[in-house]
Amino acid sequence: MVQPLFKVRTIEESLKIFRQSFDFTPFFKNRAEQIELIHAFGRVLAEDIVSAENIPGFNRSTMDGYAVKASDTFGASDSLPAYLDLVGEIRMSEKPSCQLQAGQAVRISTGGMLPEGADSVVMLEYTEYLSPTMVEISRSVATWENVLREDEDIRKNTKVLEKGRYLRPQDVGLLAALGWEKIKVFKKPVVAIISTGDEIISIDNKPEPGQVRDINTYTLGAAVKQAGCIPYYAGIIKDNEEMLKNELQKCLENPELDLVLISGGSSVGTRDYTLEVLDYLGLPGVLVHGLALKPGKPTIISLNKQKLFIGLPGHPVSAMMVFDNVVRKIIFDLKGEIFRFGQKNTIDALLESNVFSDAGREEYIRVMLKNKNGQLWAIPVLGKSGMISSLATADGYVTIKLNQEGLYQGEKVSVTLFA
Amino acid sequence: MVQPLFKVRTIEESLKIFRQSFDFTPFFKNRAEQIELIHAFGRVLAEDIVSAENIPGFNRSTMDGYAVKASDTFGASDSLPAYLDLVGEIRMSEKPSCQLQAGQAVRISTGGMLPEGADSVVMLEYTEYLSPTMVEISRSVATWENVLREDEDIRKNTKVLEKGRYLRPQDVGLLAALGWEKIKVFKKPVVAIISTGDEIISIDNKPEPGQVRDINTYTLGAAVKQAGCIPYYAGIIKDNEEMLKNELQKCLENPELDLVLISGGSSVGTRDYTLEVLDYLGLPGVLVHGLALKPGKPTIISLNKQKLFIGLPGHPVSAMMVFDNVVRKIIFDLKGEIFRFGQKNTIDALLESNVFSDAGREEYIRVMLKNKNGQLWAIPVLGKSGMISSLATADGYVTIKLNQEGLYQGEKVSVTLFA
Repeated sequence: MVQPLFKVRTIEESLKIFRQSFDFTPFFKNRAEQIELIHAFGRVLAEDIVSAENIPGFNRSTMDGYAVKASDTFGASDSLPAYLDLVGEIRMSEKPSCQLQAGQAVRISTGGMLPEGADSVVMLEYTEYLSPTMVEISRSVATWENVLREDEDIRKNTKVLEKGRYLRPQDVGLLAALGWEKIKVFKKPVVAIISTGDEIISIDNKPEPGQVRDINTYTLGAAVKQAGCIPYYAGIIKDNEEMLKNELQKCLENPELDLVLISGGSSVGTRDYTLEVLDYLGLPGVLVHGLALKPGKPTIISLNKQKLFIGLPGHPVSAMMVFDNVVRKIIFDLKGEIFRFGQKNTIDALLESNVFSDAGREEYIRVMLKNKNGQLWAIPVLGKSGMISSLATADGYVTIKLNQEGLYQGEKVSVTLFA
Repeated sequence: MVQPLFKVRTIEESLKIFRQSFDFTPFFKNRAEQIELIHAFGRVLAEDIVSAENIPGFNRSTMDGYAVKASDTFGASDSLPAYLDLVGEIRMSEKPSCQLQAGQAVRISTGGMLPEGADSVVMLEYTEYLSPTMVEISRSVATWENVLREDEDIRKNTKVLEKGRYLRPQDVGLLAALGWEKIKVFKKPVVAIISTGDEIISIDNKPEPGQVRDINTYTLGAAVKQAGCIPYYAGIIKDNEEMLKNELQKCLENPELDLVLISGGSSVGTRDYTLEVLDYLGLPGVLVHGLALKPGKPTIISLNKQKLFIGLPGHPVSAMMVFDNVVRKIIFDLKGEIFRFGQKNTIDALLESNVFSDAGREEYIRVMLKNKNGQLWAIPVLGKSGMISSLATADGYVTIKLNQEGLYQGEKVSVTLFA
């Protein structure tokens, strides 16, 4: 029987140990791939983007109206309008051929290019078209009023997006504005998922008493996609040291895999081969065994020949919570993604009843959210930790931090949402 | 020149008009498709899921220890332990053959199946293995303590997930637990994107003065993906009524398309063919023209022969904000998705400076988020509305509601995050 030394670590400590042990430079050496901009949403930039042009690149009207010299409008009002010579109309998308002289105006639409000599636009509603050659102006404008100047949106040679940026719709739009048809992004990490346990059967089977269907392949596979990675389904491995060793050896040697998740087999018990196999696979070996969190204590982080293996608890609920709070953070590192607000979706609510925890570990309390009298309440979901239904019922979870003993009824809490 | 009657509607009113005019029953008639569970993440259920089995389906131990009859442990303590006959060990995944008698115990692991006659599990740490035939118990257990009963997680014939449910990782896990290899989900809506304007050029071209690259195809395409739909890139159409009519007619007749977005051409100006074309396409025609929001006022919602067309402003920033606040809500309807917390990602912050609006419309103020002294601040992003860079700089936006005139420095605001 294996009797490993549980040296329980906090999440912070564990991530620090991982970051100190993992060699990021060679990992990121060949991770850039070029893709077409139309596929860029949700990817992570592998290069800084420096603008090669001014945007809009010309002085552009932001209103429908008349392009003028601002000085010709000074003092103009309803009672004392200015009268300007109307010398034409600027068609969209065309470079105006005229040069605007003092005392002149040209008709312009939103998005149109100002002619040389014009420095502002008077909105249509403050003008009156008197004849094909004259327009009345009843409001003065300041220089560059209602105009987007040629370099006002983006100035040439400016770093507009940073390497490591997660590309949102508008970031893709910015790249389109600058004409980046193709961009370099980091490859999506490929994450292998292995379920272990003699009792685990594939979901197309009917369980005999004592058996359970393979839930973790599905929850973890979906969570891997949600985190922007590609799942690699390695299947179910029986509680057999040789078979596990063979499978992990194959994963170690497969250059396509960036991270290997093994669920089950990590609690102190007769089935605990995972730890031994991971220590055998290559240096430096097991970095962390045991996390100060609940559920999720029997977690293993192992680095073997610079390939990362994470042993997760077998219970689907525990495996999911460790994924959300530990694996996801490691995945952000492997994606090369820099921080952004919105990486995690949270919402504030009032806690409906007291929840308690032992100090010295983080504990996750699943909650449902309910609106009552215009106030959002977080209601702890009852149910033993092995219950997948409790996770499906929950909208999210509340975290009792390391040094807290509990959270109290009526307290404002931050709920981490599952979706 | 077209002079349409702008009858400005609130978002609420517009959605109500859309929902009253759109015929959902035929739309959803053939929208279910069967997919494999492994691809179910992020999809929307097209059927209620009723459990056909009890889960776990057997009385399962939630601890490593000894399965016993609780009554045999009553009164047991460190000073007065109970001694039970050890009659074997339950192997994982196997149905125990023994029938537990009074005064007996069997060794069991987490996840193991309790034998007939056992009704509780004593944790390993409260026991001592004395000999192959005897175990000492130093703590009493209640009936069903440390046991997940056969129908405690999921009871047979219970509705566990509802039609319209967005499938999160744990929901996929629940379906795996129940053995649903294949499920019925709604087809992803296909959304056509058309950019209009003589000044718009494809992004592989270098703009001449007066021209701009086609940003909206990229921002809207990404936003459509983010909303869980499939973009259909219809390309750029010049400011030409015949060409626009032909393109929209093709979209109308294409049964693959569920929604058509047309950006540009919706402001009151010389280019305003969109409204005329949409009224010509078929009944009931234009439902809404003009929304009480900023940016985004010149928006058109049109229903033609039960196909939905939405005319968005040409400015990328305006188009994005209307997408986020109007189109996304319509898309949820077309996806058949019922409400869930987390459909929209928000975060609370304090506002760094005053912002003002006219009453009677909703206004969106783009903000950056910054942590200062442990407090999150929302800092309004300056810049004219046509600037794509202002949208890329922003982490999200603050909404000044219809009946508000402004928000004040230091006020707590809810920031809608872009990602």
